[in-house]
Amino acid sequence: MRDYQYIPVAVKRRLPRYLRVLGVLKDAGVEKISSGSLSEHLGYTASQIRQDLNHFGGFGQQGYGYNVEALYREIEGILGLDKTHSIVIVGCGHLGQAIANYVQGYEKGYRLVGLFDRKPELTGQEIAGLQVMPDEALGPFLSRNKVDIAALCVNAESAQSVADMLVEGKVKGILNFAVTDLHLPPEVKLENVHISEFLEILTFDISNM
Amino acid sequence: MRDYQYIPVAVKRRLPRYLRVLGVLKDAGVEKISSGSLSEHLGYTASQIRQDLNHFGGFGQQGYGYNVEALYREIEGILGLDKTHSIVIVGCGHLGQAIANYVQGYEKGYRLVGLFDRKPELTGQEIAGLQVMPDEALGPFLSRNKVDIAALCVNAESAQSVADMLVEGKVKGILNFAVTDLHLPPEVKLENVHISEFLEILTFDISNM
Repeated sequence: MRDYQYIPVAVKRRLPRYLRVLGVLKDAGVEKISSGSLSEHLGYTASQIRQDLNHFGGFGQQGYGYNVEALYREIEGILGLDKTHSIVIVGCGHLGQAIANYVQGYEKGYRLVGLFDRKPELTGQEIAGLQVMPDEALGPFLSRNKVDIAALCVNAESAQSVADMLVEGKVKGILNFAVTDLHLPPEVKLENVHISEFLEILTFDISNM
Repeated sequence: MRDYQYIPVAVKRRLPRYLRVLGVLKDAGVEKISSGSLSEHLGYTASQIRQDLNHFGGFGQQGYGYNVEALYREIEGILGLDKTHSIVIVGCGHLGQAIANYVQGYEKGYRLVGLFDRKPELTGQEIAGLQVMPDEALGPFLSRNKVDIAALCVNAESAQSVADMLVEGKVKGILNFAVTDLHLPPEVKLENVHISEFLEILTFDISNM
């Protein structure tokens, strides 16, 4: 396996976009594409695209461009989407249910294995094909099952205590929707999705036009 | 009104985090804080904090630090959260309902004025205190009401056509959750929240440890 650990953060964060645009091109039957055309689809310069892809060994052939399918598969592999990652969702309000549907929308890459909520009225309800379990079941579940990713859809007040249980249960990564700063050991990866921050940045933009 | 139009994008994107941390400090009764302590709370260096805040005129006093309440109010004003912005949500599935609740959670800054969904079974249902209207009502609604922001919670296939209606209806900014690239005129501001991209970046991180 190649070592992609040290690629620049900015390049890494562009990869999902590459994958999405290449997926659209692939599904449209496009077989090869120049960095110039790819640039029009992605909104990055052709030179940036060449630089980005050089981090992974290039793929392009001079005078030919990129093979869409091959590049798609390669980026899929780099992101780890060629493997299956088990996911639990903690907090099954509207946001948690939306995330459950997102996860189920992937053809591969993810397997939803558990849903948890502290509200007794949600226990046993079926969401995205799984029955919601009570929060107390999370610890025992994690000790019995290997869970790669947890989507944290609880409120800011409960987020750290749930995160502590996830760390204890050897979860590898947390997708955190709670608008608070989690304290995690370095071996647990964190991706924050603070929706209110995006709304506030947009508000800045429309207020300063 | 001061002109904040040309502040660096990176500084702008840090402002919601400043506001959140200052809000926590303010609610905890903290009156003044040094850039050093602020640094511990924010995870940015004290030097970066001083630089960031200098874009807005400083606020800090040598040997005193920052007045928490004053700095909070100032950043609130810079973000535009001291005004009230009207919001509509288009697409009232789980994600749209989650966003509606987020918006209603703000004490000020936003007023939810309309909810729209193309599913007939949702029409008339009450969400976050408002009745859902059918998609056909969106155009007429926008021509009768000034709407500042639209949260776009529809699927990728319908996103551009809905966005075109929002542009036509003079919406100033779009918070786009549909995982697709919208084409908008430059006067309409766009903030993308592509949740699947965050999940994929996390997957990269746990796959390349």
